[in-house]
Amino acid sequence: MNLSEIIVQKYGGSSVATPEKIKGVAEKVKKRVRSGVKMAVVVSAMGKTTDSLLNLAGEVAKHLTPRELDMLLATGEQMTSALLAMALNDKRVPAVSRNAFQLGIITSNNYSNARIVDMNLKQLERDFETNDVVVITGFQGITEDGNLTTLGRGGSDTSAVAIAAKAGAVCEIYSDVAGVYTADPKLISGARKLDAITYDEMLELAALGAKVLHSRSVELAKIYNVTLYCASTFSDEKGTFIVNKLPEWLEHPVVTGVTMAKKQIKFSLVCVNDGDDILSKLFHALAENNVNVDMISTAIDGEEIYITFSVIDAPIGGKSAKKTAKETVKNCLGVEPDVEDAVKVSAVGVGMNSASGVAARYFNALNKCGVKILGVTTSEIKISALVREDQAEIALKAIVDEFGLTD
Amino acid sequence: MNLSEIIVQKYGGSSVATPEKIKGVAEKVKKRVRSGVKMAVVVSAMGKTTDSLLNLAGEVAKHLTPRELDMLLATGEQMTSALLAMALNDKRVPAVSRNAFQLGIITSNNYSNARIVDMNLKQLERDFETNDVVVITGFQGITEDGNLTTLGRGGSDTSAVAIAAKAGAVCEIYSDVAGVYTADPKLISGARKLDAITYDEMLELAALGAKVLHSRSVELAKIYNVTLYCASTFSDEKGTFIVNKLPEWLEHPVVTGVTMAKKQIKFSLVCVNDGDDILSKLFHALAENNVNVDMISTAIDGEEIYITFSVIDAPIGGKSAKKTAKETVKNCLGVEPDVEDAVKVSAVGVGMNSASGVAARYFNALNKCGVKILGVTTSEIKISALVREDQAEIALKAIVDEFGLTD
Repeated sequence: MNLSEIIVQKYGGSSVATPEKIKGVAEKVKKRVRSGVKMAVVVSAMGKTTDSLLNLAGEVAKHLTPRELDMLLATGEQMTSALLAMALNDKRVPAVSRNAFQLGIITSNNYSNARIVDMNLKQLERDFETNDVVVITGFQGITEDGNLTTLGRGGSDTSAVAIAAKAGAVCEIYSDVAGVYTADPKLISGARKLDAITYDEMLELAALGAKVLHSRSVELAKIYNVTLYCASTFSDEKGTFIVNKLPEWLEHPVVTGVTMAKKQIKFSLVCVNDGDDILSKLFHALAENNVNVDMISTAIDGEEIYITFSVIDAPIGGKSAKKTAKETVKNCLGVEPDVEDAVKVSAVGVGMNSASGVAARYFNALNKCGVKILGVTTSEIKISALVREDQAEIALKAIVDEFGLTD
Repeated sequence: MNLSEIIVQKYGGSSVATPEKIKGVAEKVKKRVRSGVKMAVVVSAMGKTTDSLLNLAGEVAKHLTPRELDMLLATGEQMTSALLAMALNDKRVPAVSRNAFQLGIITSNNYSNARIVDMNLKQLERDFETNDVVVITGFQGITEDGNLTTLGRGGSDTSAVAIAAKAGAVCEIYSDVAGVYTADPKLISGARKLDAITYDEMLELAALGAKVLHSRSVELAKIYNVTLYCASTFSDEKGTFIVNKLPEWLEHPVVTGVTMAKKQIKFSLVCVNDGDDILSKLFHALAENNVNVDMISTAIDGEEIYITFSVIDAPIGGKSAKKTAKETVKNCLGVEPDVEDAVKVSAVGVGMNSASGVAARYFNALNKCGVKILGVTTSEIKISALVREDQAEIALKAIVDEFGLTD
């Protein structure tokens, strides 16, 4: 058969968390198969299985060997794939499960964060001669030497996209999120589900904190031009397509979606511009201390240089990012920075490219409701502003209203 | 390296049931490695893992596909092997885990009860170049086509013996049983642990109900002349060697051990010897109804034929063996058999071969304490008697005393 005609689907951990849910997925897959398609269904480990396995490992050893950890974790997806194949067989759907060995999913050999290098479609082709469904273990691969690897965060999405890319097929990602919304529906009532969004927009949103898809799988989909579709496992409502270009007939909004990323820390400082390359000195020092710098803006006023930058508040080798960055600034420049907790509020849309005055509308919307802007960055399809934590939701609502993102 | 110099060890489910126990096994293996040997350590799934996986399967499907069930169950041993390898690495023992794929353990393709056909030692040889221990998943193999199989009951023992056979090495089986005893220590206080026993004796004992080793692994050891050693995981006391021939210097007892098998049902009947082949008619009918007949004895007295046989009381396709056998006799010969619950008490010993009067001593011992013998069978190295359930322990003690099997 022509593998480009298959549908690749992926079900995440919460979609297969219990035997009951696995049976639900089997029913969903069966309905689709009955419509006359063949399917490769990629599955994650059930619910919290991966966490339990990690706990087990922590109980037998202080230092976990990466190779053995992957050997251990890979069992989770194998369990789900066998169970789903059994549930399908029980519903008289010809199905077979396959793991990374059996499908020859070759990866690099950096354990726990391996990259898929290649896969052999021969077994998949043979399986579809006698089966309607091949259930595939996500998240895992093997090295050239036959060692088991895992793909790291978002790994099962990546597996699904890689298989779709190699087969030239469409990839559908099912989870407990029903699609991509203009804003987080938990924060903004009336947030609209999008019919379609571009890879670039999705990448910006994912990087900015939207949790529908992991950036890595979207990047892979973009490179191989795989059409992605995100929808809910638990309902039949329409989801969101993620594509290279929106269809011509679709009205292109200026802003497609907004998102906010918490746990940002804003640093600002002033120092004398003595001709030394202060900026490169500072950011070199921060990098050396593993501080993850996000936004940077500077202004020079005669003898003085004003520097504002933001850092993501995640621990660095057991120490807080805030403390590390503060000390680095002091040691490097001899000045005490101003530090403030902040939230990054962003608007994303390919429409910004061609529309003018978007930034003006954005700043004006925030100003009107008294939100103080602590810093700004922009890209061709994105505007981000750092705001105070207590003003973050006000800012988000103001942008949603300005760009008409609710129904 | 020469693989015949390695030690093959096997640890069963109860030996690796918890992270704490896995660490204990790691410590035991480490000590042995420090004595200067390299080891292949075969492991079962942790404790009740296989049962939990079976339950999960039962929750997703009514009819379990055998191939998928094996795919599911095989994850149990992979978990243990990765955990033990990690625990060893944590103790600075160079170790790596390997599953059936990685070692090319090829089996027949009858799922859930596959037979090992061959294995490739190349990977094992390579692993020992940089490791002191290779931890191997027991109980599983792959077919020529790359499907995962499991080996059925006693599967991990079989894996260990097969690896030892192929490597030409010794095989040590560790469990919660400290060795082979002259009698069940739970029933007979003072029962002696044997230093050594022959394959044939062990096979008789295993078939007769002693639960130290599964017959299948002993048969394999016998065919390939693999020296087996059974001992406790949890202590350092000496265990029992299972060998082809006892060393010359060891005094050969007439009876090596006794055992009893419960849940036997004795049938006896009389019918007219009308010249028809009554025996073959009867046992053919029983076989057709899947009744597992154990002992058979007959006597002909002029016109009448007396038949006694025993059946193991295990359900046959949901129906009791007792009921099935009773109905079969009635339908076949038109007579109602006498039915009695019984226990089979057996004495085993290669010494019987050369000693005379063993049977007489055996029967006399039972008679002296008033045990009624319901039936008898013998082989070259075994005497078995069926006795009433309430007399089974008396019979066992009588034989133990007669042949001096306690300290």
